[in-house]
Amino acid sequence: MRDELSIQDRLYPDLPCFGCGPVNERGLRLKSYPGDDGEIVARFTPWPEHDNGTGFLNGGIIATVLDCHSAAVVTHAADERGLHAFEGALLPFLTAGIDVRYRRPSPLRETVTLRGRLLEADESRMTAAVELWWDGKVRAEATALWKRWRPRD
Amino acid sequence: MRDELSIQDRLYPDLPCFGCGPVNERGLRLKSYPGDDGEIVARFTPWPEHDNGTGFLNGGIIATVLDCHSAAVVTHAADERGLHAFEGALLPFLTAGIDVRYRRPSPLRETVTLRGRLLEADESRMTAAVELWWDGKVRAEATALWKRWRPRD
Repeated sequence: MRDELSIQDRLYPDLPCFGCGPVNERGLRLKSYPGDDGEIVARFTPWPEHDNGTGFLNGGIIATVLDCHSAAVVTHAADERGLHAFEGALLPFLTAGIDVRYRRPSPLRETVTLRGRLLEADESRMTAAVELWWDGKVRAEATALWKRWRPRD
Repeated sequence: MRDELSIQDRLYPDLPCFGCGPVNERGLRLKSYPGDDGEIVARFTPWPEHDNGTGFLNGGIIATVLDCHSAAVVTHAADERGLHAFEGALLPFLTAGIDVRYRRPSPLRETVTLRGRLLEADESRMTAAVELWWDGKVRAEATALWKRWRPRD
């Protein structure tokens, strides 16, 4: 990782999100960074209680960090495109869905790597592909759909 | 809810799963019960830190409880069919994927209801449909695929 501010700390430093909000002291506080070739990268170290029941990383926690990592991908891409949050909204886009596939067990007691990239983007929706890697193999992958957040009066 | 043991306490009382393990003292300890017409029902009260960043329930936590509720649907169905865990396995089935759609904001400070039912089942895989309801409306829904857990030597 570079010695620079994470996407979360740069673009939504005051967000209290459980997965990635910098100010949520009881949250996971995921930190994601721009990497090479447009990829967004993060590392995540599970907590002991994040067990899936069989000694591996819980699928719900996997979904949580993949979802939040996709938020970093999408918000970073929105920022690059000048798509800022509308008045009354805290973020430019909100998640509409995430489809997670569990390929192999993910370790509970190791730091894993998240990799993400933008698949499609326009002014109304973005799609991100995100993966959880450990020891050279994809453990889980997801596609996340985000839609522009337009607060209603 | 009826005055009876939950599916988790009856079928996997010693599981340390973050979402639904009865023995995970730092986990969510979801409790699911058979309802009417084959439906499986649970109630879940979020913790204050389960914020999505905008004052509603976090999408990752929604995925976590929908995933674990689908575990109750599938394990209950497996038990009814006599599909028990193989030697060396803690559960008869493991989750292979979950596709979550976020329909409306889910409240952070209210108890929500989870409803689940089996869509398809055979001896090698099961699919469950699960929903999160509050105030008479579906807030999120998911389809979860579970595959038979066959430990390898």
